[in-house]
Amino acid sequence: MRSLPSFRLIDELFLHSTYSRRRGDPGIIDFTFGNPHEMPQAAYVDALRDALTPRDPNWYGYQIYVPRAQEAAAASLRRLLDVPFEPDDVLLTTGGFSAIALAMKAVADPGDEVLFSLPPWFFYEGLAVEAGLVPVKVRLMPDSFDLDVDAIAAAITPRTRIVIVNSPNNPTGRIYPPETLSRLATVLEEASTRNGRRIFLISDEPYNRIVFDGARFRSPVEFYPYSFLAYSYGKTHLAPGQRIGYVALPPTMPDRETMRQAISDLTILIGYAFPNAVLQYAVPRLEQFSIDIAHIQRKRDRLVDALRDMGYRVQRPQGTFYLFVRSPIADDRAFVELLTEHDIFVMAGHLFETPGYFRISLTANDDMIERSLPGFAAAIDRVATISPPEAMTAD
Amino acid sequence: MRSLPSFRLIDELFLHSTYSRRRGDPGIIDFTFGNPHEMPQAAYVDALRDALTPRDPNWYGYQIYVPRAQEAAAASLRRLLDVPFEPDDVLLTTGGFSAIALAMKAVADPGDEVLFSLPPWFFYEGLAVEAGLVPVKVRLMPDSFDLDVDAIAAAITPRTRIVIVNSPNNPTGRIYPPETLSRLATVLEEASTRNGRRIFLISDEPYNRIVFDGARFRSPVEFYPYSFLAYSYGKTHLAPGQRIGYVALPPTMPDRETMRQAISDLTILIGYAFPNAVLQYAVPRLEQFSIDIAHIQRKRDRLVDALRDMGYRVQRPQGTFYLFVRSPIADDRAFVELLTEHDIFVMAGHLFETPGYFRISLTANDDMIERSLPGFAAAIDRVATISPPEAMTAD
Repeated sequence: MRSLPSFRLIDELFLHSTYSRRRGDPGIIDFTFGNPHEMPQAAYVDALRDALTPRDPNWYGYQIYVPRAQEAAAASLRRLLDVPFEPDDVLLTTGGFSAIALAMKAVADPGDEVLFSLPPWFFYEGLAVEAGLVPVKVRLMPDSFDLDVDAIAAAITPRTRIVIVNSPNNPTGRIYPPETLSRLATVLEEASTRNGRRIFLISDEPYNRIVFDGARFRSPVEFYPYSFLAYSYGKTHLAPGQRIGYVALPPTMPDRETMRQAISDLTILIGYAFPNAVLQYAVPRLEQFSIDIAHIQRKRDRLVDALRDMGYRVQRPQGTFYLFVRSPIADDRAFVELLTEHDIFVMAGHLFETPGYFRISLTANDDMIERSLPGFAAAIDRVATISPPEAMTAD
Repeated sequence: MRSLPSFRLIDELFLHSTYSRRRGDPGIIDFTFGNPHEMPQAAYVDALRDALTPRDPNWYGYQIYVPRAQEAAAASLRRLLDVPFEPDDVLLTTGGFSAIALAMKAVADPGDEVLFSLPPWFFYEGLAVEAGLVPVKVRLMPDSFDLDVDAIAAAITPRTRIVIVNSPNNPTGRIYPPETLSRLATVLEEASTRNGRRIFLISDEPYNRIVFDGARFRSPVEFYPYSFLAYSYGKTHLAPGQRIGYVALPPTMPDRETMRQAISDLTILIGYAFPNAVLQYAVPRLEQFSIDIAHIQRKRDRLVDALRDMGYRVQRPQGTFYLFVRSPIADDRAFVELLTEHDIFVMAGHLFETPGYFRISLTANDDMIERSLPGFAAAIDRVATISPPEAMTAD
């Protein structure tokens, strides 16, 4: 059995925690995962129901890539980004996990390094190790949560093959600005030349439709030609249990035919990670709508304003479902446990290799958010009583 | 990019063949893949439609293993086999590919050997190589298509970690008898002792419900405790585009908790290969029915009898969707090409590393089968004219 990174997330949340004992209890306020807490949209149910109705004998037969799904996804990407994606280059997968795994395995050899920033998505490290690769980590800029391009440049070695960028970022909610992405592209281009070997970028952007205040999302793919765009429909429709996404190659990617073939072969060999036939048929309709972003934004503002009034320090996220909040005490584990006494469940920052913070998912419903406010207030008051204010703000 | 075995199947069938140009043509008789050629069963459509109707807010949220799916699958396995499977040991996956990949990765280290028999399922080799393992191949018994246990015993080395057994067998249609499975178990037990390291068995049995003449299927798992049972619902309902299956651990598997954890972790890391939420909800209903096996058996008999009358040599399969027919000339590629002149498309034996044969899928509909008979007759008559009968039967 190969040795894999320990699953702190799973161990802590599902096995040895107050959450593991109480999740699912009707009374609790569950801010942990980006899971739905309101009934699904009728448009989503209708799209699935329509897609499952068989039109021909092979409706449920083997499918590789359903062309009308690729066409709808490419057209949608062309509207979103300044990149003329072609349908054949949208390689459908069972979601973001397999999209990232496939991009890694398509270009990296065992022992190559994969560079990403902290706080990271939980599974970059595990996916890299399963692929035989070596994770290398740098920190985001401490206050702005922007990419630390200098730190990335300093961490690149001759074995660096992949840099993962996640914008809009889980858990910080940050969208990296064009200047940062442009500087990163220059660094990667120079390092590739210096190494005599191309460094590829994986743009992990499942939240690229979950942006607030009318902001325009700019993808790293618009700035660096050697980029894979990894996407999941699970966030856009808040249906992460229905597994569909893709890895898309921009037209600037050289030798696309070879790359497409490699990814398609690997999609079979990692375990036939083409999405279900029915979900592929649903894509043209799924591309027509999303969850109510304005509602997420209202929940964001309600919580950010209320938490700040109580004395919490939190940035107003530009996108995603998440608030990444400074823990009022350094020990985020202890504070998260304190919140559970008020029936509030959040994710502690150390699960993101970033102690001193906690993450709130805005997929909680309005009722949960309103009910949470007295508990959040009581918890910060309690630690203010215990710790002097100096200790609270010492960062 | 890591080097993977070339995909002869895909290259030949989809890129450079008469089939690649003509598949999908309304007139052709498509005996290639085990894909449906009749409209889906109403029971299947109803099961999906019921499963997708949301009952709670988290209906489309992340799911790992849905307990009622595990319970229904375990109860069904207990009815089928003489093994008291427990629900927690039925580890649901996106189908047979990922079930096999997970079992391999759970127990084998890079460089370990995976032993299987020829003709094989197309993807054993590729799955092994993607997992960093070394494929080792032996032949089935030439006439009976039974497992050649002596050949397996002779091919075992100190690096052998996994033996894959596929019964009912694709493409031969053979169900291995209890005596063979018992002898194999003895060989594996002795070799494990000799090696000081356990050899595991993967029982790849997606066709374990597709058996004819009232035969009772016996699984290798009933004979050897260190066996993984890999299953896909795609055959039982002839819906291989809807991806769900499992790898199940028998209660005789030692240290099951560790094994379950390893497989569950790997299911995330190979690319989140848990099946869709909706398909998991459908399992209790899917376990209540299958495609019409008696109809497949009638198609088997119609084709076997007709082909034999024409002079073809073919065993009557005990299970699966397939006939594995001796090509009347040694060059199976040439004969398969000859059949295309009669609009008949089959798979050539060399795609199964077994030249001199071709495979027919019984998922073709009755009309296709009737329409195929003159073409099959004309093709064998044609080669009889070209080659003397001696050459035809020289095997």
